[in-house]
Amino acid sequence: MAARTNGNTVDQRVRCEVNGSAMVETNAPLRPEEEWTILERVFQMLADEGFLGPSTQEKPVVEFEYPEDLKERIHFPMDEQTPCGAATVERIIRQVLHYSVRTGHRHFHNQLFAGVDPYGLTGSWVTEALNTSQYTFEVGPTFTLIENAVVEKCLRLFNFGQGDGILCPGGSMSNMYAMVTARYRAVPDVKRTGVSNLPQPLVVFTSEDAHYSITKAVHWLGFGLNNLVKVKSDHRGRMIPTELEKAIESVVASGRKPFFVNATAGTTVLGAFDDFNSIADVCQRYGIWMHVDACLGGTAILSRRHKLLLSGVDRAQSVAWNPHKTLGAPFQCSIFLIKERGLLHDCNAANADYLFQQDKFYDVSYDTGDKSVQCGRKVDAFKFWLMYKARGASGLEALVDNAFDCAHVLVERLRSRNGFRLLFEAYQYTNVCFWYVPTWLRVAAAEQETPDWWQRLYSVTAAIKEQLVKRGTVLIGYVPLPHKGIGNFFRMVVTCHPRPTPESMQYIIDEIERVGEELGPRKRETINH
Amino acid sequence: MAARTNGNTVDQRVRCEVNGSAMVETNAPLRPEEEWTILERVFQMLADEGFLGPSTQEKPVVEFEYPEDLKERIHFPMDEQTPCGAATVERIIRQVLHYSVRTGHRHFHNQLFAGVDPYGLTGSWVTEALNTSQYTFEVGPTFTLIENAVVEKCLRLFNFGQGDGILCPGGSMSNMYAMVTARYRAVPDVKRTGVSNLPQPLVVFTSEDAHYSITKAVHWLGFGLNNLVKVKSDHRGRMIPTELEKAIESVVASGRKPFFVNATAGTTVLGAFDDFNSIADVCQRYGIWMHVDACLGGTAILSRRHKLLLSGVDRAQSVAWNPHKTLGAPFQCSIFLIKERGLLHDCNAANADYLFQQDKFYDVSYDTGDKSVQCGRKVDAFKFWLMYKARGASGLEALVDNAFDCAHVLVERLRSRNGFRLLFEAYQYTNVCFWYVPTWLRVAAAEQETPDWWQRLYSVTAAIKEQLVKRGTVLIGYVPLPHKGIGNFFRMVVTCHPRPTPESMQYIIDEIERVGEELGPRKRETINH
Repeated sequence: MAARTNGNTVDQRVRCEVNGSAMVETNAPLRPEEEWTILERVFQMLADEGFLGPSTQEKPVVEFEYPEDLKERIHFPMDEQTPCGAATVERIIRQVLHYSVRTGHRHFHNQLFAGVDPYGLTGSWVTEALNTSQYTFEVGPTFTLIENAVVEKCLRLFNFGQGDGILCPGGSMSNMYAMVTARYRAVPDVKRTGVSNLPQPLVVFTSEDAHYSITKAVHWLGFGLNNLVKVKSDHRGRMIPTELEKAIESVVASGRKPFFVNATAGTTVLGAFDDFNSIADVCQRYGIWMHVDACLGGTAILSRRHKLLLSGVDRAQSVAWNPHKTLGAPFQCSIFLIKERGLLHDCNAANADYLFQQDKFYDVSYDTGDKSVQCGRKVDAFKFWLMYKARGASGLEALVDNAFDCAHVLVERLRSRNGFRLLFEAYQYTNVCFWYVPTWLRVAAAEQETPDWWQRLYSVTAAIKEQLVKRGTVLIGYVPLPHKGIGNFFRMVVTCHPRPTPESMQYIIDEIERVGEELGPRKRETINH
Repeated sequence: MAARTNGNTVDQRVRCEVNGSAMVETNAPLRPEEEWTILERVFQMLADEGFLGPSTQEKPVVEFEYPEDLKERIHFPMDEQTPCGAATVERIIRQVLHYSVRTGHRHFHNQLFAGVDPYGLTGSWVTEALNTSQYTFEVGPTFTLIENAVVEKCLRLFNFGQGDGILCPGGSMSNMYAMVTARYRAVPDVKRTGVSNLPQPLVVFTSEDAHYSITKAVHWLGFGLNNLVKVKSDHRGRMIPTELEKAIESVVASGRKPFFVNATAGTTVLGAFDDFNSIADVCQRYGIWMHVDACLGGTAILSRRHKLLLSGVDRAQSVAWNPHKTLGAPFQCSIFLIKERGLLHDCNAANADYLFQQDKFYDVSYDTGDKSVQCGRKVDAFKFWLMYKARGASGLEALVDNAFDCAHVLVERLRSRNGFRLLFEAYQYTNVCFWYVPTWLRVAAAEQETPDWWQRLYSVTAAIKEQLVKRGTVLIGYVPLPHKGIGNFFRMVVTCHPRPTPESMQYIIDEIERVGEELGPRKRETINH
């Protein structure tokens, strides 16, 4: 029997209404023909718990429990010999919902992602229900053409001409694709001979503020971390192009071969955008592949007001963008774009006869699988495609502009509010970095903020976060930047969903202030050490 | 407003009932507060189209359209400047559903996966709605402990002791994890110095029947395909251990260093299980890491009757298993297990301060992210955990045994049915490989089956497949095995969902026979060339 949203069609043996929500009546396991009814009930549970819309706002962001306590509340071990029964299945699901973090809460700002776009979620539910792989037209006719449409649209957005692209399971993978393809372009023989037979070691450059996925890729792909150069960035996190050039010269002088520069659009912590035109000039001069990790900041491309941040990105050879971050596409949605058509296929093809038969009756150029390093590949394109269709360019732009506007409001209010201190004055993206200095920690104008005082402020930052989590009122990240000699500060990230407002920004300020002040009289001793 | 399954709570402005299903009334874009109602409607659409249960069986497996024709039916390009309107969104979704392949149809046997487990789908819908990342306890408290439980359960299943593990976006990634970790174990310095500085090139061994992800990993990780040895397998697709030993000796003699052997549990085409004990003996003798790609065949571990196939797997250093194949967990669900605890973290850690702060107020050993090569990581564990809870060991075992039983029924019936010919007599797993020789292609006992006759049979196999797709009655794969000098044959894969039956097996036989016979009088000419 198909699950139906009209309760009357569902077998009464297993259902009753409790507080308006579907619940199973007995704890007998469902019969095979009843199993699909669980979907209707889980829909209701998600709605009850507020996960399908704004009503999640009435709940705490998280009901925090320490790991060991959470293990007391939910039976995690998989030791069931027999089916656990329909009512137990429901109870388990409700427990998981109850103790999970509400990333869709308006006061969740802990990561570079937050709530989902409802059209995106719609798309991902469809994808899950249709359960297929993205590798051939044969088993994914609609999804193959949809991925093509997404790639083509993104190529136009980033002014990447007649390039190519692929959806990847996350930005780390997209960045790794870039490095593998660049290596193949630099030394096509590497596919056959490997890295070990090269006359010179290949060297990768990235900024010290860039994402750690570049480090992991350099390790995985066999270059070795000795062949990764982290270029100095300025106080706002932007790679310094003259430093890049110096670093390249030094690597050349050492007899090694620079082949890949990773520039960043929206660094993880500070939201910095590198100067792509200057970096492109350098890369061009030395014949080095330029990749832009725009996983975070690529979303600015959707806004006419903010796309200037990405000026020069079209001079790169490849770019990675994650609509699953700021834009609110559900996890995972990462797009890798490359300017040279055909290279992705040549680099990655393994010509598996069993999957990509050349004697199929349709045009096998629609089978995209052999340009992928994956075999089975989740359909990640549909959710973004549907978001675009439903909202249009203007709707997405409005969401992006609103996130920028709210980040601006936040900066202005932090600047003018006593006790708050911005890490620096002007933020390029929607990341806003700051401290709160409680009244009990403030020093008189004549006194000095000693290193010890700063250490106390860093501890206070972590302590405020702890209290926020335990109250469940706000989730906001704190971060140190050791390479700049800076300890913990708050990194607030403003995203598109759920739509932020000036009021939701104000709430963060008020709540951090309240918690910071309360810490003083009660907890000063423990913070002070 | 939360979407509710009770239609009364949904804004009447945008809804009306058409044939019992929710439809929007106007094509105005939804207001922000109405957007979440799309979820209720897509639920209904999926139910109407039969994607949420057995009623998908009433539809064709696929409404096939050639790519160019499909582009006429669905507007794929993303060129909407403004929102396309609520009714259009629904129309688009219905179109996508209509032209997608029904992998949950009982006559879909085209891939190593098929329909989803309804509990698995429930889990993945929850995961999508809760949209979080698997990297820290902070944002995934329940899911972190659930992934731990899944890893622990799998370690017990595979008798891997106090090992470690991680969920990966697919088997290719799991196999790549194995190779990276083995390399780090063999030469820890490789993380720092890379592959290029090693005294000897490192060499990987796999069988000629193994999955192509090994080839892709050897390329990506910088070893080079010259350093991949494909070991001969027997006629049933099993690596020949003496051939492995010969190959290792020859590599050693060439001055290179064997460091990784990939054995396979359930090869992609023939479903072959390598002799793990013999391979382990060889690996032990030469001090080589043994990995088992059990992406397909690992599911046998759930059955007391069939787990013998995996005998000796616990002598490997690592194993990969995809519950998203035979078992019907929704895409993507791949588990990588490793016997040496701590190695995964040491190998992959990049110590990103911004994410894995060491001064958090809870035990940060629960933050699993730094053992991953990914940063943001989709929650893939919950769906499998829920399947296990809901069905228990006995329920999953029954599903697996049923798939094996039905594969056995299929083999028996093919053996005794005129015109059908098995590739070989005994299949280890639920892959069944065969030809159908239509009456009009059969040769008299005295005549010879010439090479030309075989070429015709290979073409007929592809032609039968084409007709099956166009009728939408059955989707079944065909495959050549060039390294064994064999052209196209049918590879039928029996999976757990939707539960196969002797009748659904019989249907395949009847349908292939019917199509094969019909091809003769009408299409003989085109096949004959």
